[in-house]
Amino acid sequence: MTSRIMRLAVAGLGTVGVGVVKMIQSHAELYIGRTGCDVMVTAVSARSQGKDRGVDLSPYAWETNAVDLALRDDVDVVIELIGGSEGDAYDLVKASLENGKSVVTANKALIAHHGLDLAKIADANNVSLLYEAAVAGGIPVIKSLREGFAGNEVHAVYGILNGTCNYILTEMRETGRDYADVLDDAQKLGYAEADPTFDVEGIDAAHKLAILSALAFGVEPDFNNLPVRGVSDVTAVDIDYAWELGYKIKLLGIARRTENGIEQCVEPCLVPVDSAIASVEGVFNAVYIDGDFVDTGLLIGRGAGEGPTASAVLSDILDLAREIKVPCFGLPTEKLVQGDWIDHGRIEASNYIRLVVLDKPGVIADVSAILRDYDVSIETLIQYGRSPEQPVNVVLTTHEVLQGSLQDAITKIAELDSVVEKPHVMRIEKFQ
Amino acid sequence: MTSRIMRLAVAGLGTVGVGVVKMIQSHAELYIGRTGCDVMVTAVSARSQGKDRGVDLSPYAWETNAVDLALRDDVDVVIELIGGSEGDAYDLVKASLENGKSVVTANKALIAHHGLDLAKIADANNVSLLYEAAVAGGIPVIKSLREGFAGNEVHAVYGILNGTCNYILTEMRETGRDYADVLDDAQKLGYAEADPTFDVEGIDAAHKLAILSALAFGVEPDFNNLPVRGVSDVTAVDIDYAWELGYKIKLLGIARRTENGIEQCVEPCLVPVDSAIASVEGVFNAVYIDGDFVDTGLLIGRGAGEGPTASAVLSDILDLAREIKVPCFGLPTEKLVQGDWIDHGRIEASNYIRLVVLDKPGVIADVSAILRDYDVSIETLIQYGRSPEQPVNVVLTTHEVLQGSLQDAITKIAELDSVVEKPHVMRIEKFQ
Repeated sequence: MTSRIMRLAVAGLGTVGVGVVKMIQSHAELYIGRTGCDVMVTAVSARSQGKDRGVDLSPYAWETNAVDLALRDDVDVVIELIGGSEGDAYDLVKASLENGKSVVTANKALIAHHGLDLAKIADANNVSLLYEAAVAGGIPVIKSLREGFAGNEVHAVYGILNGTCNYILTEMRETGRDYADVLDDAQKLGYAEADPTFDVEGIDAAHKLAILSALAFGVEPDFNNLPVRGVSDVTAVDIDYAWELGYKIKLLGIARRTENGIEQCVEPCLVPVDSAIASVEGVFNAVYIDGDFVDTGLLIGRGAGEGPTASAVLSDILDLAREIKVPCFGLPTEKLVQGDWIDHGRIEASNYIRLVVLDKPGVIADVSAILRDYDVSIETLIQYGRSPEQPVNVVLTTHEVLQGSLQDAITKIAELDSVVEKPHVMRIEKFQ
Repeated sequence: MTSRIMRLAVAGLGTVGVGVVKMIQSHAELYIGRTGCDVMVTAVSARSQGKDRGVDLSPYAWETNAVDLALRDDVDVVIELIGGSEGDAYDLVKASLENGKSVVTANKALIAHHGLDLAKIADANNVSLLYEAAVAGGIPVIKSLREGFAGNEVHAVYGILNGTCNYILTEMRETGRDYADVLDDAQKLGYAEADPTFDVEGIDAAHKLAILSALAFGVEPDFNNLPVRGVSDVTAVDIDYAWELGYKIKLLGIARRTENGIEQCVEPCLVPVDSAIASVEGVFNAVYIDGDFVDTGLLIGRGAGEGPTASAVLSDILDLAREIKVPCFGLPTEKLVQGDWIDHGRIEASNYIRLVVLDKPGVIADVSAILRDYDVSIETLIQYGRSPEQPVNVVLTTHEVLQGSLQDAITKIAELDSVVEKPHVMRIEKFQ
């Protein structure tokens, strides 16, 4: 016998919203067993009411204005799947929390930008704001950080956080095709949006990393102190040379506590081909969590799509149905501190550098001298081809060097007459 | 300001017990922040009181008899790290639950054999029985199954569940050495016990699989309906041939819902070298969870050792400190059903078979005829070497065949005069 009932409003009926409705319709009995609570949808909202979404929405009340869901007496929990950090999504979440309704969202932009303020509103109203689906789709990375590894001081969390970029990089490597060509295909296949900027420029990954960083280190999510670089300037040539050196290129989000502060950044990195993260291909996501006692855990799974994302939304819904209550960012909001972010220039890392230079005497000497002057120690240097007075590729790898010094050196190198293209620089990440 | 206090008794002060005490001593403030509850040890018990364990136990009361911890008024939660399915471990857990104290344990044998009865006692007394550390060390696989993937009907859970076996198989492959030789080394390194039976014969993995199976399918843990085979009959020769065919050998625990019932088994299997699970080497564990909406998730991490196992124990302790309450096996005990276990003979799988046969005309024909008679379809067949009238290796792989028919065919083949060694048979597992 069920004594409790939890009534949901679903705002946004795209693939994820429809997935959530499907799961609840097909597994209602299972959920009663698992939670002792009857989880049901009572109201929905989306832009167009008439559209056939392949699921029966007739039992549910329809609100034309999503924000009105926050006011309904027959709704206990609001599921926000509209997206975007402002507008209806923000208004609905805020109004719901203020009205004493817990909120489950898949909205990474919203949490990265307004998570702290919204969490404070949730705390003040003694309700929950949950967002498992905002990071890494079906992988329970939020729960793992907040609960599974809660006994640890976290040293680092990093991984592949955007399936679109990982698909593009995988395809480029496997087929040798160019970025623009593969992006075009990804758009046709539905793996990339018509306007792919958020994905390919790393912004989506950065939203997710800001959230992971907050959970890992007990800091306020801070999207503004997060240098971001996407995959749009990764070339097929660099993927080839990286492979020759024993690396694959992956877009990584990296958050790590160093002696000098917390580092967080999103950038394309070279990772060793025999590392576990290198084996994560296509639209899959992977997140490493490194804690002081647990050592390293790795979670791999589908980072997007109807089923995986809806599954993550359901995990939050069922936590609410089980009356599980954990602080939004793992700590009460008043205990979250501002991150002591390390300046990107003070990070030490190994690097891959590709220069396009005119093949003539003295060029390598000039480049080497500049690197020496900036304390950048060369590990390997290979000139590819021989073509007097013509452009050739010179590929270098460095030992661990200060990224600020490296940047200064690269600026100088770019000014050399014999360097005929903007230098291509990427970090090498071995996670040791 | 902390208002709540949770007082722990730790029974068993081996590496894991000491790890738990260390974590609590070093992270007490962190835990207050994360849970709003002051988590403290008040009493301990172990076999020898005088021994220096590298941690200060003087603040805690000492009980010579572990079971007496269940009776102490200054203990809210009992941490059972004694081990073994019977004796003190069982008595302590039972008495603690009956006395209204929640229990956290790392004891897979106890949960596999008595989990159902103990969970019933926990339910009756409205306390919790938690065991994250019993499966896959630091990896939060119990929490992921019970909460992270709770929105799904689980189709399968499988993986590498024993670090000792995985270390042995990895070393054998990398060095070409024999089983006995590598086991000897593993014992010297502390990766295998003096009596390695539980690990190398697959019993430890089977205990863990019985638990995963219960959580995945809502069935009573059933160690008796679980065919088990370990790694002690895996030879260096088979590892070589498997490698040549594009496979590594891994000891897998597999629990899967089929049309004809639930399969659960532990056995050495060939897995494709380029699969993610093949990349999990040494003492690491890996668990796949396959759900109807989430598709496949994979969790990888250290399966044993002080820090990782203590981290899992702490995740349970902090769940209790946060007043999180979830049914022991994901469902109330009265809703757990007996598994409709499929007879092992009715499972369909591909197989690797190595025969040692006398190299003379007609042998292959005899073998092929028997396989044909039992409907076992051959995918590849390779005779290695040519040595008239002397023993040579013949390696076959089969398509998906009924394992019962295969077993019958193998029995017939073994009876052939020209087959001079017991046939070596292992399943090929591609997880498609």
